[in-house]
Amino acid sequence: MSKLLIVGTVAFDAIETPFGKTDKIIGGAGTYIALAASQFDIESAIVSVVGGDFPKEYLAYLNGKNINTEGIEIIESGKTFFWAGKYHNDLNTRDTLATELNVLADFNPKVPQLFTSPDFLMLGNLHPAVQMSVINQIPVKPKLVVLDTMNFWMNNAWDELMQVIGKVDVITINDEEARQLSGEYSLVKAAHKIHAMGPEFVVIKKGEHGALLFHNGTAFFAPALPLEEVFDPTGAGDTFAGGFIGYLAGTHDVSFDNMKRAVIVGSNLASFCVEKFGTQRMEELTREEIQIRLQQFKELTQFDIDLD
Amino acid sequence: MSKLLIVGTVAFDAIETPFGKTDKIIGGAGTYIALAASQFDIESAIVSVVGGDFPKEYLAYLNGKNINTEGIEIIESGKTFFWAGKYHNDLNTRDTLATELNVLADFNPKVPQLFTSPDFLMLGNLHPAVQMSVINQIPVKPKLVVLDTMNFWMNNAWDELMQVIGKVDVITINDEEARQLSGEYSLVKAAHKIHAMGPEFVVIKKGEHGALLFHNGTAFFAPALPLEEVFDPTGAGDTFAGGFIGYLAGTHDVSFDNMKRAVIVGSNLASFCVEKFGTQRMEELTREEIQIRLQQFKELTQFDIDLD
Repeated sequence: MSKLLIVGTVAFDAIETPFGKTDKIIGGAGTYIALAASQFDIESAIVSVVGGDFPKEYLAYLNGKNINTEGIEIIESGKTFFWAGKYHNDLNTRDTLATELNVLADFNPKVPQLFTSPDFLMLGNLHPAVQMSVINQIPVKPKLVVLDTMNFWMNNAWDELMQVIGKVDVITINDEEARQLSGEYSLVKAAHKIHAMGPEFVVIKKGEHGALLFHNGTAFFAPALPLEEVFDPTGAGDTFAGGFIGYLAGTHDVSFDNMKRAVIVGSNLASFCVEKFGTQRMEELTREEIQIRLQQFKELTQFDIDLD
Repeated sequence: MSKLLIVGTVAFDAIETPFGKTDKIIGGAGTYIALAASQFDIESAIVSVVGGDFPKEYLAYLNGKNINTEGIEIIESGKTFFWAGKYHNDLNTRDTLATELNVLADFNPKVPQLFTSPDFLMLGNLHPAVQMSVINQIPVKPKLVVLDTMNFWMNNAWDELMQVIGKVDVITINDEEARQLSGEYSLVKAAHKIHAMGPEFVVIKKGEHGALLFHNGTAFFAPALPLEEVFDPTGAGDTFAGGFIGYLAGTHDVSFDNMKRAVIVGSNLASFCVEKFGTQRMEELTREEIQIRLQQFKELTQFDIDLD
């Protein structure tokens, strides 16, 4: 069974959308990635840090999903990372209302002994120095390393980010970030330039407009499923990444053809994530629901045509 | 051989993009639609109006592509409709610099005798009263009527637009227009409401983000081909529509499965249109280039996956 190591935040979020608002609920990239990846037959572990205010029962809940949480350091005297945000009516843009780093400010990741030789490594969006520290704790290069990052690190930690980018096989970023990282408006040209920085595979996430996978001059496109209602987009990108790497880990196959399937799976899982607030939908999600939705993805994209 | 009747502008455009600018060149929705549709084995005709300044050689050129131009009225004392626009750096937005209606102001469309019983009718973007006048000149309902329209008519001719919408099988509009027409942000909900206004098929064009085809609660998605460079987006939507209806007319098949193919073909042809200024690329385009690009569309979208 493949071992997947995930580094990412485990956090509290307070979310406001046009459909309602939440008090502090559990969130964080590490949480969303692990929940999505847990749909596949793998062993996973999260490396993260939380404060004494984080519910121990939630860690036990994750353990019940075969997610190892030994690498989630608990700083009893500290408080868990907290983010509050409010989405605009189009749900594509949001204002950050609060960012309290708390214990994340001094996060010094420690990979648990059992996971120092993972087959798959997912570097969730965090300071690139933290991501590099995790890479450095793994002596043998995993079968696949996937990096998620964002514009904030491009603006504030460019050199460290470039070092991490040079070490990974796959990078997932959104379209605006791909343009910023490459200085190219065309996503095709952006992907070329990002390839040259290191990653053999470039995944560009476009939210409601789907995701593009670039490799070796070839592109593959996974649409987002058109939904009646998007309730809360929080965690959709992380869920996409978790579904992507979870599927690859579960199938032990990192070929381009399998990556195509993996972006469809990522898009599939993300389409559930946005249906309810926070992690709620991902916690109830069944294999059967995923299979039914996969059929919808096929209907949405598959055609048969020859021009002669 | 299917007969396709097209009503749409035949015009002069002056275009400025980040890559350069043109003097007055030939454009207009009717021109782009007819050029795209001429890739298929059909007989087509344009209903339009031009001034004495419009080059007769271009009408002869269209005739050479099996496009009947008897329905293009020439008002020798008048001037041809002229549009000038400047695209912003992202090529998704533009400023209109000039709109001179000229002979279009009093356009009174006359369907040529040979085309009063077309199998397919394409109502290009024009005042809905003009579109309705064409519908009224055709005694027997064609196999398929496709309507293109825009926000301007929603703002200025709502009642007449609703009457036309009630008469057509397919409507093609962009995402913002679909939201305005329906009052719904979700495109799935927007499509439901637009279905209820009449059209059994709703095509929502999202520019560089592709196009969605909705029918009977089912959606199909045609991506835009990711391009190294988009040179000039003018006419891409009309080329999409022309490829869509041209393919349907050429195959004599208006089933939902064939419409899926038709939106792929539309997206295929539109991806060429944007590669050069104006109609230039569409004039040189060969069947072989279209076939090669179709292969790219398959690579971009087709996958094979089962989850068990």
